[in-house]
Parts: sequence; C-alpha cells; structure tokens
Amino acid sequence: MTQPSSHVTAPLKDELDIVIPTIRNLDFLEQWRPFFQPYHLIIVQDGDPSKNILVPDGFDCELYNRNDVNRVLGPKSSCISFKDSACRCFGFLVSKKKYIFTIDDDCFVAKDPSGKEINALAQHVQNLLTPSAPFFFNTLYDPFREGVDFVRGCPFSLRGGVPTAISHGLWLNIPDYDAPTQLVKPLERNTSSHRYVDAVLTIPKGTLFPMCGMNLAFDRELIGPAMYFGLMGNGQPIGRYDDMWAGWCAKVICDHLRLGVKTGLPYIWHSKASNPFLNLKKEYKGIYWQEDIIPFFQSVVLPKDCTTVQQCYLELSKLVKEKLSPVDPYFNKLGDAMVTWIEAWDLLNSPAQEAAAPVDGVKKN
Amino acid sequence: MTQPSSHVTAPLKDELDIVIPTIRNLDFLEQWRPFFQPYHLIIVQDGDPSKNILVPDGFDCELYNRNDVNRVLGPKSSCISFKDSACRCFGFLVSKKKYIFTIDDDCFVAKDPSGKEINALAQHVQNLLTPSAPFFFNTLYDPFREGVDFVRGCPFSLRGGVPTAISHGLWLNIPDYDAPTQLVKPLERNTSSHRYVDAVLTIPKGTLFPMCGMNLAFDRELIGPAMYFGLMGNGQPIGRYDDMWAGWCAKVICDHLRLGVKTGLPYIWHSKASNPFLNLKKEYKGIYWQEDIIPFFQSVVLPKDCTTVQQCYLELSKLVKEKLSPVDPYFNKLGDAMVTWIEAWDLLNSPAQEAAAPVDGVKKN
Repeated sequence: MTQPSSHVTAPLKDELDIVIPTIRNLDFLEQWRPFFQPYHLIIVQDGDPSKNILVPDGFDCELYNRNDVNRVLGPKSSCISFKDSACRCFGFLVSKKKYIFTIDDDCFVAKDPSGKEINALAQHVQNLLTPSAPFFFNTLYDPFREGVDFVRGCPFSLRGGVPTAISHGLWLNIPDYDAPTQLVKPLERNTSSHRYVDAVLTIPKGTLFPMCGMNLAFDRELIGPAMYFGLMGNGQPIGRYDDMWAGWCAKVICDHLRLGVKTGLPYIWHSKASNPFLNLKKEYKGIYWQEDIIPFFQSVVLPKDCTTVQQCYLELSKLVKEKLSPVDPYFNKLGDAMVTWIEAWDLLNSPAQEAAAPVDGVKKN
Repeated sequence: MTQPSSHVTAPLKDELDIVIPTIRNLDFLEQWRPFFQPYHLIIVQDGDPSKNILVPDGFDCELYNRNDVNRVLGPKSSCISFKDSACRCFGFLVSKKKYIFTIDDDCFVAKDPSGKEINALAQHVQNLLTPSAPFFFNTLYDPFREGVDFVRGCPFSLRGGVPTAISHGLWLNIPDYDAPTQLVKPLERNTSSHRYVDAVLTIPKGTLFPMCGMNLAFDRELIGPAMYFGLMGNGQPIGRYDDMWAGWCAKVICDHLRLGVKTGLPYIWHSKASNPFLNLKKEYKGIYWQEDIIPFFQSVVLPKDCTTVQQCYLELSKLVKEKLSPVDPYFNKLGDAMVTWIEAWDLLNSPAQEAAAPVDGVKKN
C-alpha cells in the first residue's frame, strides 16, 4: 500500500466526503491515492447490486448498492435514479460532512502546463473557503485569489463577497459535449498545452450555468438539499441531464439566498468519451426540452419568505410541475420526486436522526 | 524607419482606426510599429493645444487638439472632456471606419507565457469578428474559439450567438485598480508567468462589467454612439470614471439590442501606475456615487421601441437625469451632455455629412 506523500496537504480531511458513483472496480483511485487517501469515500454502486465492486486497499470507504438505497429510504427510494450516474446524490444524502467532492470513475489526475500534478480536491477546497462575487463581474477573474483584487469600478460595499456554495471544476482531454457535438467533432480534445485556462470565476447572479457532475464540490450545509440529480436512466425518458438539472435548480436557489457559484480550476483528466450514439438516445428528449427548461429557470422568481434551501426547493418543485408539465408529463413526476427528495433529506439530516444510529453502507477495507 | 515585419497580419486595416488620447510625444508607438503601422491613427491631444506632440515617422495619423475639437463641434464641443482621457471619444466621433481600437500611451506590447509578442489588435479583431454568447454561460469559455464548442446543456437555438460589439482586453504588469486599492497594494503586479489567463468570454446578458479604456476595441457601427466617455476632468467633480461610465451605458444597450461584449485576451503591458494620491482626488466622488450608479444600471429597462443605439442612449440620458440627479446635480449636467453627444454624433455621422468634406485634424507625417 502506497502512503500518501508527506508533502500533500489534505485540507478539511475530517469535514469532507468524496462521493463516487460507479458500476465497476475502482482502480482509478490508485492514481488519486496521494490526494484522496486521507478522506472518507462514499461509493454509490449503480446497477446490479449483486456485483462485487473492488476498491483498492487503504481507502476509508463505505459502499451503498441499490439494496442499501432501498433499505435506508424505504418508499422514498423512488427518488433515487437507477442505472444512471444521477444515483450519486444518494451519497450526498447519507454523508454527515459539511463538504462534498464528487468525481466520476473515468477521471484521472491532470497536469498543469508546467507538468505538475493537480490536486483537484485542494483547489476545490480553496474555491469553497474563499468568498464569491456574484454581484460584480471582475475582469481579472477571482478577486479572492492571491495577487488579485477587485478592479476599478467595483462598489466597495460588494467587496466582502458572499459565501461560496459550489465549486465547478473543468476537464482536460475529453470535453463535456452533448451527443450531437460529440458526433460532429469526434476528435476535439482539451489539452493542457493549449486549453488550460488558469482562472476561477464567479458565475454572475442571474446567469444559469451548465453544471457538470464529473468534477464538482459543494458546501452541503449551504446548498446540499438542492443537489438532487433528478429522475434519470432506468424507467425514465431521459438521461445525462442529472447534473444539468441539479445545476439549474441550485443556481436559482444560490441567487435567491445570496450564495456564490464558482467555475474554472481545478482540471481533472477525463479519459473516456462516452458512446455518442447511446448518449443521443439518452439525451434526445433533453435536447428538445432544454429549449423550454432554460427560459423557465431564467424566469423563476422565488418568494422572499423562502429562506432555507428546503423551502426554496419545494417552491421550485411546484413551479416545475406548473410550468414544465405542459412540455411533458415527465415533469409532474420529476416535481413529485423533488418533494420526495426533500423528505428523504430531512429524514436523514434532521437533528434527531443525527443523534440516532448513523446510516451505514457496507464498510470496505 | 522600420518596416513592419512581413509575417505580421493587419486584419481589417482599411476598416479600423486606432484612437489614442495623449498629452505627450508618442514614442510608445515605436514598439507597436509592426502591428500598428498599416492602420490609420487618430490622436486626440489633451490639455494645452499649443504643445507640439511628436509622432514617430511612418505612421499614417491625424491629430486633433482642443482647438480642433472646438472648431469641429462648435457649441457642442461642451460634451468633450478636457484634461482627462475621456477626450478620446472625440476620436470615435470623427472616425469614418467601422471598427475602433483605442489604447493608452503607457501601454506596450505584452508577451504570452511562451515569450511571444502579442498582437493585441489582431486578437481584438478576432474577438469582434466572431459571435458572442450572452445568453449561455459556456464553462469552456469562448465557444467560437478554435477547438472549443458549447458544452452539454446549451439550447441549440442559442448556438448561433449574436454579433460582438465590444472586445475588452486586459493588462499585464499594472492592474487597473482604483486609488484605495493602489494605496493598499502598491506592489501588486499581474505577471505573465502567474496571471496570464488564456481565455476570452462573453459577459452574460444582465451583468454589468467594469470597462477599462486602456485596451479596448469596438464595432463603431453597432455600438459607437454609446461609447461616450462622459464629463470628466477639468471643471468636473470627477475623473477616472470615463471608461466605466461608457461601459455601463454600452452594456445595458448591448443587452437591450442583443449585442455581445467579450472580455479577456488580448493582454497589453501596462507600464506606469498613475499616482494613487492624485487618483484618489479624482475618484473619491465616484467611489461614493458608484454605490448608487451600479444599482441604477442594474435596474435600467429600456423601452422596446428603442431599436437604435441613439434612441437607447437618449432614453438612458433621461433616466440618468431622473434617477441619479438626486445623488448629485452633476448627473443633470451629465444627462444633458449625453444628449449633446448624440447630436454631435449625428452631426458628423449622418449620410449627408459623410458625403460632404470629411472632418480633418492636422495630418501628421
């Protein structure tokens, strides 16, 4: 067993869980060992629960398969997707930590242009622990980064910023394209020599963004209940919109609650382009629906008396049913699942529950 | 006289003017010679008109001093600031070209991290000739750059983008800080080794930005009449907000007219920090007022029947007088000057005027 290098820092190691949805053995963790080994891992096993998932030695992790999801949530398990990486949000539900970092199992350690391995987790922590500036577009990017400040023209009353709820990281090698773009540009790659952008920026208030779940961190206490990845995959008419859905919901709630969302650094190395033909099958309704979904989220106004994430999310679920069900009856089902998700969240995250026995998956290693 | 290197391209050389406000000899042009020499230069001489400004040999340029401004505009010359770089907008008025690049005389050629000299003008042209994406926040930055596209989650109906009206470039070495930040961080520098961000991005619709006039290009036909740099400097209670004012006005008009604003590349090398004590004197009212100005611009809604930049700008001038004059009577004067500016613009840019004899400054060289 390799020990983590002594010079690697593990910030917030007792306050952060790493959540990984998977259907296969987690050999990819070997490369992340120096960075991830100090942390607790929550593996959400998708698909056949009888399959045994192997985790490399030396990681502190617990694993939940579909049987565990059903056991923990009972009838409320209906809100957790099956055969789709959307199942990852079950890990957010059972975590007891303040911060979450979630990563896909085809993502590896990237190198910066100088050739140095990037500690993605440490950069996410830095993004989350420094404020955001959603009310002022700073042309020199993140004003809370060392050696940078607010440029001329920024009202001083805004310079304190707001707490950062979400840190959205990017990808070298395979970019996060939809199926049509994958089909049209099969060779397009994001390489560190010409596409590494050394910046973090706050997404302005009022602007939606396409949140990708591959390389993502968030403050569970600030925004956790909004990080629901929807109904996707098996038995649903749509896939590959799980993270987008969570991002659109979370962003309007962050805007309402004066929380920040950052995007940019850190990069991971995305190794495997998913099959564009299969993706097209999963996505095609989403590609159609997003023409209505985006204007819907752009126009959402949450009532002032919604002061918690849960209140905002329940209000949003009503609006989804009201405004999007004319697009497709699926959105009625999704709106109901959003309510079930909040019930599940409160069930597992109420003070009473936290005092009782913790929810356990299978302890590995 | 050095000839421009044969390998340097001069895109749009017959459709773009370079506008430079100055109070001194233009030796800084020597370094820019390979990039600027193919273009026509409009020099706006600030301050004492009897002073002779020397321009290096071989540049095709015309120079306007205060006497020329008075001669060309008559009573309308009151809208052009004196003893402030805001006078640069006179150059926008008298240009007959479709594109403008404006640069300060303390800005030099920057180098990218590989050590290559950056042709700032060529990058601005590239920014202006490719569309913007103000309705979708693309996490991989400019989707119109080669090797990049829209990421998953972008409605396909938005992927055509909109015409780009403004390209806002950045600065290595001395960042564009206000006086208080200059005073607090006298040593802060933006160096290419650790602060070069290889990105261009569209500023989202509905988001204001701090437009700096140091390194700026725009499409004069699309947005020219909104590029008024206000009443600053001599006889005015404020300075150093000329470019900010133009940027705030131009951005709300771009948003209304579905035009794009890009920021990021290209970088120039900003050599000289202005005196922070003098800057504080010029800025202090602006620092106070911007607390009201920003919310004003954030809330501006232009009527649907304003379909030209001039109509939008005149409407904005009314709103400025109505909403900002309670902050200070200066805004009444500024609102009037905004109207005069549009009158001056139409005077010099009407089809009749263009058929008549062109407005001339002193031809140099």
